[in-house]
Amino acid sequence: MTTVTEELETKVEAAKVASRDLAHLSTDIKNRALLNVAAGLHARESDILLANEEDYREARASGLSESLLDRLRLTSERLAALAADVRNVAELPDPIGESFDDRVMPNGLRIGRRRVPLGLIAAVYESRPNVTIDISSLCLKSGNAVVLRGGKESFHSNKALAGIVRRAVAEAGAPEEAVQFVESTDREMVDRMLKMRDSIDLMIPRGGAGLIRFVRENATMPVLAGGVGVCHTYLDSSADLKMAREIVYNAKVRRPSVCNALDTVLVHRGIAEQALPDVARRLAEAGVELRCDPAALAILRQAGIDGVKEAVEDDWGMEFLDLIAAVKVVDSLDDAVGHIERYGSGHSEAIVTGDDQSANRFMDRVDAAAVYVNASTQFTDGGEFGLGAEVGISTQKFHARGPMGLREMTSYKWTVFGDGQVRP
Amino acid sequence: MTTVTEELETKVEAAKVASRDLAHLSTDIKNRALLNVAAGLHARESDILLANEEDYREARASGLSESLLDRLRLTSERLAALAADVRNVAELPDPIGESFDDRVMPNGLRIGRRRVPLGLIAAVYESRPNVTIDISSLCLKSGNAVVLRGGKESFHSNKALAGIVRRAVAEAGAPEEAVQFVESTDREMVDRMLKMRDSIDLMIPRGGAGLIRFVRENATMPVLAGGVGVCHTYLDSSADLKMAREIVYNAKVRRPSVCNALDTVLVHRGIAEQALPDVARRLAEAGVELRCDPAALAILRQAGIDGVKEAVEDDWGMEFLDLIAAVKVVDSLDDAVGHIERYGSGHSEAIVTGDDQSANRFMDRVDAAAVYVNASTQFTDGGEFGLGAEVGISTQKFHARGPMGLREMTSYKWTVFGDGQVRP
Repeated sequence: MTTVTEELETKVEAAKVASRDLAHLSTDIKNRALLNVAAGLHARESDILLANEEDYREARASGLSESLLDRLRLTSERLAALAADVRNVAELPDPIGESFDDRVMPNGLRIGRRRVPLGLIAAVYESRPNVTIDISSLCLKSGNAVVLRGGKESFHSNKALAGIVRRAVAEAGAPEEAVQFVESTDREMVDRMLKMRDSIDLMIPRGGAGLIRFVRENATMPVLAGGVGVCHTYLDSSADLKMAREIVYNAKVRRPSVCNALDTVLVHRGIAEQALPDVARRLAEAGVELRCDPAALAILRQAGIDGVKEAVEDDWGMEFLDLIAAVKVVDSLDDAVGHIERYGSGHSEAIVTGDDQSANRFMDRVDAAAVYVNASTQFTDGGEFGLGAEVGISTQKFHARGPMGLREMTSYKWTVFGDGQVRP
Repeated sequence: MTTVTEELETKVEAAKVASRDLAHLSTDIKNRALLNVAAGLHARESDILLANEEDYREARASGLSESLLDRLRLTSERLAALAADVRNVAELPDPIGESFDDRVMPNGLRIGRRRVPLGLIAAVYESRPNVTIDISSLCLKSGNAVVLRGGKESFHSNKALAGIVRRAVAEAGAPEEAVQFVESTDREMVDRMLKMRDSIDLMIPRGGAGLIRFVRENATMPVLAGGVGVCHTYLDSSADLKMAREIVYNAKVRRPSVCNALDTVLVHRGIAEQALPDVARRLAEAGVELRCDPAALAILRQAGIDGVKEAVEDDWGMEFLDLIAAVKVVDSLDDAVGHIERYGSGHSEAIVTGDDQSANRFMDRVDAAAVYVNASTQFTDGGEFGLGAEVGISTQKFHARGPMGLREMTSYKWTVFGDGQVRP
């Protein structure tokens, strides 16, 4: 235990010290480090794949599920995609040093705000080794030092990848101590990290719901946690039926396992009979199971649609992460808003409507990270929103909401320039 | 206990429901409510003073200290000042509804961010009844519902003031349930509030260090806590000596008991002999006690300045909140920065210098909520920074840093307008 604690404390302290220099690094040097990372992923591909093979073998022997094994697996193509992502981060504008809200006060003080890094970020993640590269490249570009603590299943892969990042940083003339990889995968380690509020400015948990809940409940510092997405699409009485059908299909089927995927379709009573059978047939093409309230069920059975089920109370507000959707008929837009208020998780909510007043009312009244008019909720993503890259999607309201890009990984300081002003 | 819990839950739930309407209130109605509050403070002055007299009598009988009794005391002048503050808040621009970062993506989606309230804010405070008015007026203007829980010493005053606010809100045609005053002063109540993360979006503790620490350590939601201010002023080798003297004097003496007051003077060895005696004589006019490192001590004794003491280790990094200052001679600007890094609390830090390069280096390297060149740290204040009013000064880096005005009491949502876009 002593060595575990010592390793953590030594690395956190080294990262904290390095964070001070990292905060002042030029954009050029940070970009050079990122391009070095991309080059390293290419040059050392065989070492990485070898390390990954070792993880994969051990994980399979220990009975890890197929889906987790798939997340763990690195291939030549996946490494190339990862390198491309890193090069994209290099091309994004540097948020650090940006001045805003500058003004001259009547007493002559020049007051403004200047964007600065948060300081030291700690990432705790599970089996996906690509997180090692994702998080460290976003931290580097935003001037934040990072302590990485991956899961034991991907230990060898993570270690190889973190080594490439550290070398890339050093070769760019930047402080490699700003990127630390904690080797111990002891659970105790995470408990200790969560108490280090004096050193660690932000915790990023990446992984299953259990890990995220544990970090949120036990961290003594702010936590950036990707949110649960219980997402609704409401078909208003004035909706274009074809548009409604295609938006619902895309929001559910494109990738059903992501947080911005549709969970519940709400449909106005006035168009339910016209709209629902079409929506159901389209979803059936992808094998989507429908769980319906009594009104929707009656309409679908009437229309000769088979295999639909009756919803139970737990289906409302459920994040399915699968080819399942709940369907409910509502009497009005306000009823839809009320349902979303009660069962939504504040992630992504959409209306399909042909009426501007309905669009605006929905936009005004629904309180979520992203509110859509006539588009698929699957667009909630840093890249799609023009942020370029993201560390996650926040459903919290404090600090940042929705996709969290580079700017959301920063703070600011007030700068005050005077010529001897004292306060009366 | 049941009644205590019931009162809290009923009021929190009512405020949460009202917060949804408050979020959409027009600026006009919110301003009318604020002007009603100001008018109410005037019209009901005698009731308020009577209630305050009752608190004051009980508090004095129970042996409350003179300084706390002074904080508790309301007078006709203090009420007039409070009403003027509320009218000032009415004149500030409304942050809610502001759109920013609007853009049209290549696929035609119109994406932007819109400023929205946080939702429901809870304030827990001690003896100062003016907090009831301060916090509720800032919450109203920023569209946030508020649950107020004041200390038992100021119970009657708080109740009278909260009643005025609720009436003012109702008379403006706004939902009075958006302002709730919790009558129970049971400590249990605070524990319960801190667990209500599903309803309360932000906790604001106002009072002594003990209360603030308790809330920070036990809250399950974000906390907006005014920070400890251990503030340094560094006199660079190129400082104008008269400017240095007056800035130090103002930063320490203007109001020694506030968080932006100077605690430690750092002086470059090259000017220490010239600068320090003058600084010490000026501070002596106000009776400031100096606690010096050996080099500063030698210089001051040599100059015939009496009554200076030798500093002990605890004096560095101490927030004196009193007419006491620590003094230390440093070898360079970087030494000053190192000292600030080690002992500062990230609140307000200043350099006095005639050299632009030194000014910029200090500005770049010092990590604090507010960094000053050639001005007094006592300017760190929402009003002085042009925010108009503040709920506190944050030394945290997440969300907002430094003075927290109306905009800092908001979040945003992403708005997406499409015409049928689905994600490839």
